[in-house]
Amino acid sequence: MANPAYVAVDWGTSSFRLWLIGADGNILGERRSGEGMMTAAKTGFADVLNAHLAALSVPESVPVIACGMVGAKQGWVEAGYIDVPASLSSILTGAVSVPGQSRDVRILPGLAQRDKAAPDVIRGEETQLLGALGPGGRGMQAVCMPGTHSKWVHVQDGDVIGFSTFMTGELFDAISKHTILSHAVAGADDARADNSAFKAAVSTAFRQPAMATNLFFTARSGQLLHGLTATGAQAKISGTLIGLEIAGALSDVPTDTPVTLVASGRLQSLYETAFKSLSLKYTSIDADTAVRRGLSAAAEAIWSN
Amino acid sequence: MANPAYVAVDWGTSSFRLWLIGADGNILGERRSGEGMMTAAKTGFADVLNAHLAALSVPESVPVIACGMVGAKQGWVEAGYIDVPASLSSILTGAVSVPGQSRDVRILPGLAQRDKAAPDVIRGEETQLLGALGPGGRGMQAVCMPGTHSKWVHVQDGDVIGFSTFMTGELFDAISKHTILSHAVAGADDARADNSAFKAAVSTAFRQPAMATNLFFTARSGQLLHGLTATGAQAKISGTLIGLEIAGALSDVPTDTPVTLVASGRLQSLYETAFKSLSLKYTSIDADTAVRRGLSAAAEAIWSN
Repeated sequence: MANPAYVAVDWGTSSFRLWLIGADGNILGERRSGEGMMTAAKTGFADVLNAHLAALSVPESVPVIACGMVGAKQGWVEAGYIDVPASLSSILTGAVSVPGQSRDVRILPGLAQRDKAAPDVIRGEETQLLGALGPGGRGMQAVCMPGTHSKWVHVQDGDVIGFSTFMTGELFDAISKHTILSHAVAGADDARADNSAFKAAVSTAFRQPAMATNLFFTARSGQLLHGLTATGAQAKISGTLIGLEIAGALSDVPTDTPVTLVASGRLQSLYETAFKSLSLKYTSIDADTAVRRGLSAAAEAIWSN
Repeated sequence: MANPAYVAVDWGTSSFRLWLIGADGNILGERRSGEGMMTAAKTGFADVLNAHLAALSVPESVPVIACGMVGAKQGWVEAGYIDVPASLSSILTGAVSVPGQSRDVRILPGLAQRDKAAPDVIRGEETQLLGALGPGGRGMQAVCMPGTHSKWVHVQDGDVIGFSTFMTGELFDAISKHTILSHAVAGADDARADNSAFKAAVSTAFRQPAMATNLFFTARSGQLLHGLTATGAQAKISGTLIGLEIAGALSDVPTDTPVTLVASGRLQSLYETAFKSLSLKYTSIDADTAVRRGLSAAAEAIWSN
C-alpha cells in the first residue's frame, strides 16, 4: 500500500464520507455512513471520526481535512465563514484546527454573502466548487450544485463574487406532498420520466418565471381538461421549479456564461436535460469527485509546504 | 316584509351562504353554514337547501339561483363550463335547472380555458366577477380574486378573454409548514404584521420573479445573518408569493390596466397593501357583495322577462 498522506472527509448534515488518500494522490480506502452532523452531535464527533479511521488503520501521524456542516455552529468546531467576494484560494487556507486531538484535524470554512438584499450562506459546497473549478479560472463562470437547496455560485477570474440558494428540491417535495397537486401526481412512475413534459415545463418557466405558481396549477388543470398523466404532472412540477431556478441563477450574468454542473445520478441527468433543452453551454462533474478534489487541494495547500 | 323575489345561494366546496332577496332588491334574510359541497354530497343537496329555505319560510313559488361547486361534476347537478372567450352576459344565461324539484332551482356554469398551454377552470368566481364588473365594461380590466388558489381574470370590452389560477395561499401554507422555513416563521405574530418586510418582498418578487425560490430562502438566511424576526420571515414569504402572482397576472396586459380586487378581511388588506406598494391603480369590492350582486344579475336576467 502506498504511503497514506491525508484523510479527506465530507461531513454533511446527514451523511459522512471519508477517503484515505495516498502520497501519489490515489484513493487507498473509503468509508461512508449516515453519521452526519445530526447524529454525530449526539454521539460525539471525535468518536465517529476515530472509529472510521481505526477501521482503515490510519496512523495517528496522518492528518484529516474536513468540510461541511461539521464546521457549523451546531457542528464539531465552528469554522466560520469567509465573506464574499473571496478568492477560491482563500477557502483553501481558511481551515481551522480542531483543538484537543492527538491527530491534526482541520475543518474548512463556509462562505457568507452578507448583502442585505440577498443574504446567503453555503457550507460544503465551497469545497465542491474548488474541486470543480480548481483555484484558477478565467472570465465569468456559473456553477450549479442542485439538490434540496440548490446552490448557484458566480465566479469571476477565480473570485467567488456571489451565490444564491434556490429551494428547488424541498419545494418539489412540499408541493407534491402537501398541496392539492398531491392528487395530480399520485401514482407517478419515477422510472418512466416524462421527458417531453419536463422539457416543455423547463422552457416555459425559464421564459415566463412570473407564471410559476400558475404553471404548477396546470399540472392539475391539465389533467382535468387534457388527460395529463400523473407522471406528466410530476414532470411539469419538477420542470417548472428547475426552469425557474435556472432563469433566476442566470438572470444577472452574461448570456454566454459557461455553466459547470456538480451533481450525481438522477439530479445530474435532470439538470443536463434541462440545460440541453435551453441550449445552455455546460460541463458536468460528479459531485463526489468534486468534493474529494476540493479537499485534496486544501490538504495540499496546508501540508505540502 | 317586502315581497320575496328570489333566493341567491353561493355554494362552495366547504361553505353555504344563502340570501333571500326582495322585489325591491333588498336582503330579507340570510343563512350561512359549513354545509358545502363536501358535506351536502353526503347528506343530500335538496335536504340542505330545503332546510335553510324552511328556516326562512320561503314560499315554494320563490325560485333559487346558485353558483359554485354545487354545479361541479361531484356536485348536485353538473352545470358545465362556458369556454372562454365568453361574454359576461353568457354566464347569466347559462344556468341549468335542477330536475325533480317542486321549486325552480338553477345553477350557474363555470368557465373553462381549454388552451393547451394554459388549461384552467373556475367555478364560483365567474359569479363574483359578474357582480364586481357588471355585464358591460369598456377596455381591458384585470380582476383579482385572491385565496388558496388566487384567480385573475382578464376582461376586454365585457368579454372574458382569459384567466389564470395562482397557488399563492396553498403554497404559503405548504412552505410555512412543510419546509425548513417552518423554523424561520415559528412564533410569527399575525396580529403584528411586518408591513415593511411585506412591501419590500412584494416589490422584489415583482421585479425579479425568477428569483422567487431564492427569495423564500432569504427568510432563513436573513435570520442567520441579519436578525430578521419570525414575523418578518412570514411577511417575506407572503410578500414574495403575492409579488410573484401580481407579476405573472399582469405580465400579458398593458401596464395601465385597472385592477379590481374582489376580497374580504385580511386578504383584502394584504392585496391592497401590495397594490399600493407597486403603485397599481385598483378598486376594491367586498367578495360577499360581489357574489350576491352576480347572483342577482343572473336572477334578473332569468326571471324578470
